[in-house]
This record gives sequence, structure tokens and C-alpha cells, in this order.
Amino acid sequence: MIGLDRLIENALLEDLHTGDLTTLAVLPEKRPAGGRLIAKEPLVLAGIQVAARVFQMLDPETVFTPHFQDGASVAKGAVIAEMRGDAAILLQGERVALNLLQRMCGIATLTARYCEAVRGTGARVTDTRKTTPGLRQLEKYAVRIGGGSNHRFGLYDGVLIKENHITAAGGITIAVQRARAVVPHTIRVEVETETLEQVAEALAAGADIIMLDNMESAMMRRAVEMAGGKALMEASGGVNLDTIGAIAATGVDIISVGALTHSARAMDISMLLEGY
Amino acid sequence: MIGLDRLIENALLEDLHTGDLTTLAVLPEKRPAGGRLIAKEPLVLAGIQVAARVFQMLDPETVFTPHFQDGASVAKGAVIAEMRGDAAILLQGERVALNLLQRMCGIATLTARYCEAVRGTGARVTDTRKTTPGLRQLEKYAVRIGGGSNHRFGLYDGVLIKENHITAAGGITIAVQRARAVVPHTIRVEVETETLEQVAEALAAGADIIMLDNMESAMMRRAVEMAGGKALMEASGGVNLDTIGAIAATGVDIISVGALTHSARAMDISMLLEGY
Amino acid sequence: MIGLDRLIENALLEDLHTGDLTTLAVLPEKRPAGGRLIAKEPLVLAGIQVAARVFQMLDPETVFTPHFQDGASVAKGAVIAEMRGDAAILLQGERVALNLLQRMCGIATLTARYCEAVRGTGARVTDTRKTTPGLRQLEKYAVRIGGGSNHRFGLYDGVLIKENHITAAGGITIAVQRARAVVPHTIRVEVETETLEQVAEALAAGADIIMLDNMESAMMRRAVEMAGGKALMEASGGVNLDTIGAIAATGVDIISVGALTHSARAMDISMLLEGY
Amino acid sequence: MIGLDRLIENALLEDLHTGDLTTLAVLPEKRPAGGRLIAKEPLVLAGIQVAARVFQMLDPETVFTPHFQDGASVAKGAVIAEMRGDAAILLQGERVALNLLQRMCGIATLTARYCEAVRGTGARVTDTRKTTPGLRQLEKYAVRIGGGSNHRFGLYDGVLIKENHITAAGGITIAVQRARAVVPHTIRVEVETETLEQVAEALAAGADIIMLDNMESAMMRRAVEMAGGKALMEASGGVNLDTIGAIAATGVDIISVGALTHSARAMDISMLLEGY
Amino acid sequence: MIGLDRLIENALLEDLHTGDLTTLAVLPEKRPAGGRLIAKEPLVLAGIQVAARVFQMLDPETVFTPHFQDGASVAKGAVIAEMRGDAAILLQGERVALNLLQRMCGIATLTARYCEAVRGTGARVTDTRKTTPGLRQLEKYAVRIGGGSNHRFGLYDGVLIKENHITAAGGITIAVQRARAVVPHTIRVEVETETLEQVAEALAAGADIIMLDNMESAMMRRAVEMAGGKALMEASGGVNLDTIGAIAATGVDIISVGALTHSARAMDISMLLEGY
Amino acid sequence: MIGLDRLIENALLEDLHTGDLTTLAVLPEKRPAGGRLIAKEPLVLAGIQVAARVFQMLDPETVFTPHFQDGASVAKGAVIAEMRGDAAILLQGERVALNLLQRMCGIATLTARYCEAVRGTGARVTDTRKTTPGLRQLEKYAVRIGGGSNHRFGLYDGVLIKENHITAAGGITIAVQRARAVVPHTIRVEVETETLEQVAEALAAGADIIMLDNMESAMMRRAVEMAGGKALMEASGGVNLDTIGAIAATGVDIISVGALTHSARAMDISMLLEGY
Repeated sequence: MIGLDRLIENALLEDLHTGDLTTLAVLPEKRPAGGRLIAKEPLVLAGIQVAARVFQMLDPETVFTPHFQDGASVAKGAVIAEMRGDAAILLQGERVALNLLQRMCGIATLTARYCEAVRGTGARVTDTRKTTPGLRQLEKYAVRIGGGSNHRFGLYDGVLIKENHITAAGGITIAVQRARAVVPHTIRVEVETETLEQVAEALAAGADIIMLDNMESAMMRRAVEMAGGKALMEASGGVNLDTIGAIAATGVDIISVGALTHSARAMDISMLLEGY
Repeated sequence: MIGLDRLIENALLEDLHTGDLTTLAVLPEKRPAGGRLIAKEPLVLAGIQVAARVFQMLDPETVFTPHFQDGASVAKGAVIAEMRGDAAILLQGERVALNLLQRMCGIATLTARYCEAVRGTGARVTDTRKTTPGLRQLEKYAVRIGGGSNHRFGLYDGVLIKENHITAAGGITIAVQRARAVVPHTIRVEVETETLEQVAEALAAGADIIMLDNMESAMMRRAVEMAGGKALMEASGGVNLDTIGAIAATGVDIISVGALTHSARAMDISMLLEGY
Repeated sequence: MIGLDRLIENALLEDLHTGDLTTLAVLPEKRPAGGRLIAKEPLVLAGIQVAARVFQMLDPETVFTPHFQDGASVAKGAVIAEMRGDAAILLQGERVALNLLQRMCGIATLTARYCEAVRGTGARVTDTRKTTPGLRQLEKYAVRIGGGSNHRFGLYDGVLIKENHITAAGGITIAVQRARAVVPHTIRVEVETETLEQVAEALAAGADIIMLDNMESAMMRRAVEMAGGKALMEASGGVNLDTIGAIAATGVDIISVGALTHSARAMDISMLLEGY
Repeated sequence: MIGLDRLIENALLEDLHTGDLTTLAVLPEKRPAGGRLIAKEPLVLAGIQVAARVFQMLDPETVFTPHFQDGASVAKGAVIAEMRGDAAILLQGERVALNLLQRMCGIATLTARYCEAVRGTGARVTDTRKTTPGLRQLEKYAVRIGGGSNHRFGLYDGVLIKENHITAAGGITIAVQRARAVVPHTIRVEVETETLEQVAEALAAGADIIMLDNMESAMMRRAVEMAGGKALMEASGGVNLDTIGAIAATGVDIISVGALTHSARAMDISMLLEGY
Repeated sequence: MIGLDRLIENALLEDLHTGDLTTLAVLPEKRPAGGRLIAKEPLVLAGIQVAARVFQMLDPETVFTPHFQDGASVAKGAVIAEMRGDAAILLQGERVALNLLQRMCGIATLTARYCEAVRGTGARVTDTRKTTPGLRQLEKYAVRIGGGSNHRFGLYDGVLIKENHITAAGGITIAVQRARAVVPHTIRVEVETETLEQVAEALAAGADIIMLDNMESAMMRRAVEMAGGKALMEASGGVNLDTIGAIAATGVDIISVGALTHSARAMDISMLLEGY
Repeated sequence: MIGLDRLIENALLEDLHTGDLTTLAVLPEKRPAGGRLIAKEPLVLAGIQVAARVFQMLDPETVFTPHFQDGASVAKGAVIAEMRGDAAILLQGERVALNLLQRMCGIATLTARYCEAVRGTGARVTDTRKTTPGLRQLEKYAVRIGGGSNHRFGLYDGVLIKENHITAAGGITIAVQRARAVVPHTIRVEVETETLEQVAEALAAGADIIMLDNMESAMMRRAVEMAGGKALMEASGGVNLDTIGAIAATGVDIISVGALTHSARAMDISMLLEGY
């Protein structure tokens, strides 16, 4: 990933800044050490190369040996990776590596649960733009690793005509026409709807994707029937692990879930040092 | 906050990049609009100036009027702030402003609950370095707004001698001596301990702060007695809203809580556009 | 445009670096002056706000008054804009402003000629990724101003399965399936074809857009018939002002033209200083 | 070239940003491949190390073997370089490498034609500051490779007293004196002239270089005689391949040509992938 | 040191910018050469790894062999380090490497003299924030190498309540209380005093460190007695090599010396090229 | 000065980083204050606009009123400038503003002494490249303010053929020819010489400037005679305030002095706060 090194360098600068006072004082000489990353709870692994890069940016001679690859289900207590290198380097990279890895695993693990909940239906679980500023690319990667799909990355690579746009443009039809005229032909046009009348208008206007915003299941089912495969149907709003099964059962193609990124809990992972 | 503009500019670039396709197509002309930020659940406000700055960096003419200041308890349904400006600007800043504000309010609100749980004891709730890479300064600010205190910001502005350092140095006493000799005199020296023997050695070595790592309450109480006010006593590990009361009752001075930043849920806040 | 200031600041640093020796020596005092940007040949204007920003970044008090807006057809000899400000500032911004403006006008003017050549057909003229490194956003903007449309901005916001991808994947069908499974649902899938067999396979595989690469007009016409409106048809390769009319007549929806950005000549624009 | 890596990294970020969707989907595994850069028309090669660096920054293990060095005349159809590496890396670097290489070769090739046109005279062909913002250093390098010489790089490393400066200062003599007094002694002072009277005054004032701006050949010849070797004489304005021979014949030392950089056409070079 | 490469790259860009004209013209081909860094006066070495990194950033194949490590006392005429590499690289790195090394050695050497002057007393010599903008981390490192200690690095990692703060807060006691309440518990609170009354109030308020600003020796001695070991006592102001002995004899713990960084003279070091 | 804001922002970030702990705790509310910058010793002022910009970047509402302009001789005790603004802002900008201002004034003041020492001779005092990494532009500005002139800014805007280049090229004549052929015609060619034979060869080769390196006065005088005005003669090496008079008397045009920047002492300037 081009740009990853900049992100990690900034994260390291944030934590180390003018240097690690403790290690400078207590561990002034180089001293070989080994470390292990341990899963303290079951998780879906995401970000192992990011963690590796943190240590290698501090010292290219650090050896980082993953025991699992991204996407693996890791059991509680399992060793995720082993490292060998200078003790000071392992201590200095620990917190940044874990802060990134724990968050990415949290997202992948949560995503996997949502995907599991729609298994067997045709629905695809996607993320949203409700991500952590600065970390969107890593978080959307973690969603993919967890089995989910990505929605647009930002305002620049997708069109989503919301209520405010519709009002401003003077209606769904004109809004879709304008988008079609201006937007690259490689990009689909999506319209947010709240009623079946809007669904009908969006379909007639030639929208490629129709977002069903906070609709009841019955209404969503009806909207899916109206579309008849002519547009992708996306459910949005009020999605959680309790409701997603019923939503998927309505026949929608896509279910977008903000919680994948804005509410994923960090997985519990710790680093053990040893052998020095 | 020097540096805030860079952070926000990068967050906006992440979301807008080459431009907002939808608005470019559907809202090509300037059009005045009003917006309101609404709390969808009770929360402690943190980051209102950050949200304001997002919109003002997109267009300095945007008027942002906060109804509350940071630290205020905001009721469900309350209007947090009002904006007036170009509709496109409000739409383009919405997601970045909310992503930052929701996270900061989440941290402040959770911190306030932890602080409430120790009210009446002498204990101070602090954060840790378990923060989001790139956002540490904002997250630690939110902790303060929620009534908590900051632990060190990074490896560069505090000393924390952990088990690995002790082993490497050859004992607590020698580790503390080395830190004292090298570290700026403006910085206190903290030692992590797991047993009362270690507490005793750290006290004898002249440690300024002693971290009691994952100790039982009885043992913590005993450690506090041993210290007799000669060192600050900090509890760490296994702290949650169920346990923090008992921990505070042991007489420790400081309780550090990773969950404040690594597990705070984003508060539910939404932006309504209107009047155009 | 978020990011524009950085681009201009870098361009100014490239030219001014440690300072304008001549002005420092010869014009050491502030002195009010007026300037005019003159079109030395007919052109389609693009980038007037970019030129304005160059002068205003050097000195916010510079007054820049455009006589035309982007998209206007400007006659030879016409005054594009007037400026008033410190003589040294006008002289220091001149070259950077013109270097950007002349290039953008060149692209817009050339694009307008291509668009004129397809007028009356349903074909849309688009750019490619054959842009100047560092200036892609400005150049694609100029294409839009000239009446053209944008193709994808980069590798990240569109899918184009080329011959190499097809070979690697083992065929068009499997390549399209993989893209569908992985790529955000907001992005269309395009396949590059060289034969009608490939067109047929791409259609059957459900490609959203089919690129007809360097095909004869007759073959393109046949491909358009085969598609029957089920996919967007894009002509590419060997497009110039002599050939584009015939290509458009085949019924393709899109004609992508690398020359818009890689071979546009800078328009002749000069700055006159006066009145001091 | 210090700074080249930053330039290339930014160019790659512009094109790849959050990643190459097509390759991610269709070529998810590593797969060795070979590539060849082919000249589709005769050209003077410039920028081969820049192209190499693009691929090596994406993956240091990519092997890039140039068949020619910068300055070589390459025949139509010749293989400029061969690469071996991961197929995805070759595909991802292709466009950025070509965009830079094609432009640099275009400038070198055009410069060579101008230099050929003055062969046998004492005149030296130089570039101007009419370069692409952000690429000046590469473009001026390409001019040298094509056999031309560089004029000043920016406003900071040369003095050119133009009409506006003369007016502001109150005459050529005072302007030259001021420049002499302030500017580093390592820098020559050049004066732009439009009449023989100005030439005479500039010579008397001790100008090191005299620019003859848009003069007729006869007038230029007279100016050269007036100078009698006491100053370098530089022709500027209205220079093209048809006129440069006559200009050189006037005896001027330097002919500066904006077209070298602002109007060079990109050379046609393509990349072929194979063997996988 | 994370961040060092950025600092050196910027220093090299400042000096090399668009390239070394002389070497480009005179030494266009690679040519192996050897170089030696020679101490032209006795000095304490500091920054040898910084100098090495300058050359290695220009060309990773440059071999840099230090003859001494940081902290060594180097005699006049001694060879500090030897280099082997391309002649042009050695010439291009020379000035930047020396500019950094000479300054760092200057600081270390001066610091060593101050430390020598307090030898045998319990006083510790520290730096201040009077450092060169952009080089603080390197300069504070050089102070440590010279045997001194660091005071706080900036406004963010220490508290120093000065006269202005006291006035604003309404007294020393309230100012100390506020600092204690807000500042991380890992940071000590220091108060600047000018009278013994202030010393008494600061001690009573629980200040951890008391700065004695420009006091007479007798008054300092009295202040030290008053403190009786309950606070660290720091002398500041009017410190030079003539006065520091007497100041140390008062029993203060810390003597902070702005001159270490703001008035250290660059040590005389030169680079000799040979063997080519 | 384009680029100054970046330099100051980085200097402020170095000092403030995550914030001013003391002011945050003790001065949490806005409070108007006045400040004065006082010269504690006689000095030549340089950098007053830099100091102003430091405060204005922290808060654009700060009012900064200079009592002198750059170049003024300021008496001991004089008020250099007055400020009005928020007390916290004045305190936070103080150190960075003074660190820059004191250094610039130190350079200007020392330069003025060197210039005074050559008054009445035709010699011009110039700086060298022995500047502080990152601050070269400000330091060379201060030299000009002190009455000196600038030598080349870096390796990119001047040619200086040193002994190593001569050896590598195979002699002075060939080295000068190569430089003439490659270097922009706007740049003069300088040759470093150590003997009169070298001076003679350099003159014959057409060098524009001849550096007389560490020569005795008699030899310099002889070299000046040999040149007879055909080249600028520059003395270098062993220049200090005791020797510069005699050197100037030899008739050299230029005397370059490394000490102006590498050994200037910071002038003593302090900031007083009041009125709140």
C-alpha cells in the first residue's frame, strides 16, 4: 500500500517524538530479544503486515514472523506472530503496532459476525464513510478481510443523491439526470429513498442503485419487487446484528453498516517479551 | 491547537480527494442553507471547535454557532450547534465533522461515567497510550473534558519502567537509578509492580509513582499503606465500570483506564439541513 | 478545491525558492501597479480561479478581476482579467500563473474542438490517465470545462480489465466475476476488447462498459449492435480530430482521447504591467 | 537527484491513491511477468532512470534493464528497456512511468531538433521558465539531454531586468547598478532590450548579458556588433524551427526557446507485458 | 532517531536543491574517492551518526567508518572518521555534514567545560529551550553527550510557572494548585522565584522544583537550606564559566545554562578528499 | 518570503507540540496583555517581521508594533517592539520568536562589524554556506541587513571549482571549460586557487571569479595585480576582525567570512509582559 509508510511514520512520531525516555535510560545498549503477539480472545486477523511494518520501520533488521495471515480465525491464546530484534525496538514499536492491529482485528471480527448473519441470502454487507479520520484505507481493508465489501471510499468515487440533494435539485429525476451528465461513466448513480414513491421515481429516472433508508422490512420487500433486478437495492439505517437477518431476507442486494467501523471494539492482543 | 489545521485538512482530503461528485453534479451553484447538529442520545460534548473548524476550513464564510461548549451535558434531541453557509459546503464537511465529533463525545461521555464512579474518593481517572494513531491529542483532550486526567502523552514525556525494563536493567533499584540519572529532572519516574516485594523495592529506590498492575484490592490497599504518601500509587489493569469503585476505595491516587480511548463508542449525532 | 493551495504553494516555491533576485534589487519598495492578462489567440478559458489564487497567495491584498469565467470563448486580443497590487507581487506571480493557465486553457480549447467534432451524435468525449503527474485534477477539470467528460481519475475509482488482466485471470468471464465480487458496487466494470468474440464474451459476463480498442469503424458498429444498449460502448485508440467523426457515427457512447491532456499545446497568453 | 523520490511518490499516490481496484480483484496473487518499453516513433531518450525508479519504488525487487542510456537516439520499434517483476507492480507503475518518460523524451527530442538547426553556428539553445509546475527540474534535465543548455532555473538564481523593472527603476543604468550592488557576485546581470538605444545603454551600464527581445535579424546583427564580445547576446521571442537558423546566423550567443518545454509533444512509447 | 531522515533530507535539499552545478559539470562520471574528517582543534565528539547518515542518504553505498564514538575527547589533528565513496557524493554531502557536526560538537564541548566546572559538587548542568529552531532534538542530544542533562524539551513536557503566570493566577499557591489539578501526574511542577518569600510560598504550595532566578549566591544558599531537600533547587540566570563554580557551591541541584545552545561556537572540522 | 510560514509553524510545533501545559493549567481563560521586546545590549536589528509572524500565526488578532525596522541600530535598553494580545499567546510565542530574532540580530550585528572594518576599501563582505541547516535563507537575509552581501545560496546557484574538482578534471583549464559548457550562462564560474601559478591559469582559462584561499597579503596583492580587473578576486580563509582590514587593503573585491553565520553569538533580547 503506497502511503502506508507515511501513516506509520506519523503514528510512530506521535508516540516517540523526541525519543523513548525509559528505554534510553534503562536499556541504553542493544540487546537481542524475542517477542510474541498473543490473541487474548478469539478474533479474525487483519493488519498483520501493518504490525510487521511498524517494527521494520524502526529497525529494518527486526525479524517478524507471522503465524497467521490476514483473514484467519485465531483462537484465544494463540500466538499471532513472533519477532526477534533489539529489545528497545520491540518495546518502542509495541504500542503503535497494537493500537493499529487491535483496531483492524476489531473491525474484521465484527464484520465477520455481520456476514455470518446474512449467510445464505444474496445480501452483501458493506461499510460506510463513518471511519476514523486518517485510517479509512486500513479500516476499509479490514472490512474486506472480515468478508464484507466496500462502499465508496469518499465523496470522490461514488455518487449518492440524498434528500438534501433531491430538494436542492428539484426532484429525483432531475438530480439523476444531472449526475449522469457530469459524473464519469465508470461510476454508478445511487439515490437515497424513504418512500415507495421515491423508489418508483428513482427507478424511472434510471438510478443504478437505490438506497432504502430506514424502511420497514415489508416496505423494503416491496421495493425489491418494484425494482425487479433493474437496480441494485441497498438497505441502510437501523442495522445491527439482531435486525440484519430480517433485512437480508427482504431480498436487498446490499446492506451498509456504519457500526462496522464506528463501533467496533478493539480486540484484546498483547505483546510478550522474553529471552533476554 | 497548533497542528489541528493539518489534521483536519488531511481528513478532508481523505474524504473529498478530487472532489464531491454528487454535489458537483447536483448542486453546481452556490445556495445558502442552514444546518443543525442534533444529539440523538445524551452525551458530554467534546470537540465543538473541531467541528466548527472543519466547516470553516472548507469555506471561511461559514457561520458556526455552538449552543453548548465543551464539557456540557447535552440532552437527547438537543441542538448542539447551528450552521449557515453554502449548502455544498455543509454537505461536504458533514461526515468529517461528525466522525471527529462523535468520537470525541464518545470518549468524553465514557470518561464522565468513570469519573462519576469514583466520585468522593481521592482517585483520579487517567487515560493511557491506547489511542487512535493520529488522533491522540484530540482523544486526550476529550478525556480531560470528560473530567479525567491525562497520563503521559507518549514515550517522550514520562518514564514508566515495566517488567521488561526491570529484567533488562537487573532490578528495580538499578533501573530507577539509571532513569534518575538520565531523564530530565522535570519528569517523574514510575515503576510497574506486580508484588508487594516490588512495591517495597520501588519505594526504597525512590520511585515517584508506583503502578500496581492487575493487583487484587486487598493487595492494592496494602501497597497504599506501605507507600504512606511517599509515592503516587496508580492502579492499572482490569479496570471497568463495575470494578473501578472498589479499586478507588483502596486509596490509590490514580486509576488508568485504556477503555476510555480504545473502547469508547461513537455518540449518535446527526446533521439536518434545511431552509433552502 | 481542497489541496489547490498546496499545489500552488509548491509551484511558487519551485520558481521563487529563496526569492526573486531581480525584484529584490530593482524594486525594493512597494509600488502599486496594474496588470492585464491578454489572450494572444482565441481560446476556451479554464483556470481563471487558479491564476487568481496564485497572486492572492503571494499577497492577499492583490485584487484580481476576471473579465470572463471558465468555459467562456475568449477572442484574440481580449483582456481575460485585470489585477491591481504591488508591482513586485504581479511580477513574481506572473510565470506560475501563466504556466498553469496556459496549460489549462490549452486542454479546454482542444477538448472543445473534439466535442465540436462529435456534435449531434450521442458520443461523449472523455479524457484518460495520460495526464501530467501532479496536475491531474486541474487537467481533468479543464477537460470538463471544454465540454468533455472525465474517465476514471486513477486506478482507484474505476475498473478497466485489460488484455494483461484477462490473460492473467484466464479469460474475460472469470475476470469480470472476480471484479464484481471484490469491487465496490458503486463502481462499474469495464473490459477492453479487440475482437467481436471478446465483445460477445464481455457482454455475456455482464460487463457494464466495453472498450473497443483500436477497432475499425465497421467492427465498432457491429459491436454496438451486439450490445443493444446492455452495456456502454467506449471507443479508444487512434482517435484524432480527423477520425473522431467517423468513430462517433458508429454509435459508441464514449470516445476516450489521450491527446486531450498529453498533447494539448499551451495557449498563448501574456501579462502586461502598467500604470506605475 | 535529491527530491526525485518525493516527486514520484506523489505521482504514484495521484494515480493509485487507495489502490488499484482492477488488479486487486483480478490479479490478487503475485505472479512473475516481463515487460518491455517500446518506442513507437524515433526519439531522443530522456528519463530512463526516472522510469526505473517508478517501478522500484513500488517494489524494490523489480529488475529494470535499460537498453539505452539518456541521450541515445532510439529508432522506431526499438526496445528501450526490459523489466521483470510482479505483474501487478508492472501494471501499476506503467502509466506514471510512461507519463513522465514520454514527456521527457518529447522535450529532449524537440530540443535536439532545435540544436540541429543551429549546428555550425556559435549559438547555444536554452530553455526558459515556461515549464510544467512541479516538473521543472526534470524538464530542464531533458533539455540538457537533448543538447540544449539551461537558462536560470527560477527567479532566485539569475537576474533578468525586464521592461517593467526598467520603468520602475527609472532607467537601465540605475537598474543595472542596483542589481550589481545587491545580487550575489556569482550571478550575472541580464537586461532585456527592444531597441538599439537600449542595447547601447545596457552595454554602457555593464550588463553581462543582453536579451534582444523580438528583434528583426538585421537589428540583432547590429546589436551583436555593438557588443563586440563585451556581453553575451541572447535572442528571445518568435523562435521556432523555421526562424532559428536565421537568428543564429546573426551571431547571438544564446537563443532561448519557450517551446522546448511548453509545447513539446509527448513521444509515443508503450509498455508490453508478456511471459506470464 | 525517528524523524532524523526528514531533517537531513531537508538540509540536503536546502543546499543541493536542483543539483550541484560544479560537480555536474566537472565530475560528470562516477569516480571512487576517500575522505577524512579532521578535528582542527580539540573537541568532544557529538553527531558522528548524523554525519554518517548525510552521506548515506545521498548514496547508500558510501562507506563511513568512525574512528571515535560520540562522547570521545578528540585531539587536534585527529581523524574523526574516514569515508569511501563516489567523489561527487562526498563533495555534495560535505557542507551539510559539517554544518551539523560542527555545531553539535560545539555544544558538547562547551557543555563538557561547564560540567567540569561543577565537578565534585552535587549540581547537574542542564540546557534550556534557547535552541536553534528545527534542531532542538540534536542540540539537546549534544548536551547529554557533553555530560549535561536535559531540561524540558518544550512547553508540552514540563511545567514552569513564571512571574507572569503567578501574576495572572493571583499567587504562587493557587498557580501550583491549578497545575497539580490539570497536568499529568507524571510531570513535576516547577516555580520560578526571585525572593525568599516566594521560595517559602512555593515550598508550602508543594512545588516539586524551585527555580532561583538571578539570585545572589548567599540568597541561593539560604533558599537551599529552606528547602531542606523537599524540592529540587534550580539556579538560573547569569550563569557562565566564571560564575558557575560559586553557584554550584550553594548546594543547588540543577543549574540551567542557555549559553550551552545559544552561544556555542562551531568546532573547526574539515574534510579532506584524496586518493582519486 | 514564501516558505516562511512553514518554517515558523515547524518551530512552533517543536516547542508547543501537544500544548503548553503551564498556560493550559494556570491561564485557562483569555486575558489581554501587553508585551515589549527589549534590547539588553546594542544590536543591529534583523528579523522583526519574523518575530511578528510568530505571534500572528498563533493568533491573527495579536497586534505587533515594531519600533524599529530591520537594519536599524538599536541601543541597549531600547524597546524593539510592542505587542498586545492574549497573555497565553504572548507567552507561547516568546521563546520561538526570541530564538529566531536573537540569532538573526547576532548575525546582522556581527556582519556590521566586519563591514565597518573594510569601510573605505572597495571590498565587499560576503557570507558562505556555513549556515544553520534549515535557516539558511533567514541567515543570509540577516547578512544583507548587516550590510554584507550574499555568496551563492547553495550548490545549485553558483559554480566554485575547488582543489578536488581541479584534480579530478585534470587541471584548471579543462575544469573551467567544462563548467562553461554545461552551466547556465547566467552563472559565473569561480575557481579556488592556492598559488600564483593557479591564479595565472585560472585567468587564462577565463574564470569569472578567482578565490584566493588562505594566501598571505603580499601574494593576494600580487594576484590582484595579475588579474588587472579581468576577474573578480575573492579572499577566503583566516578572516577575522583583526585580519580583515589588511586583507581588504590588498585590493580584493570580495572577502567571504564563514564566521558571519557559524560563530555569531545570539544577541541578548528579552520579552516583558505587563498590564494584565
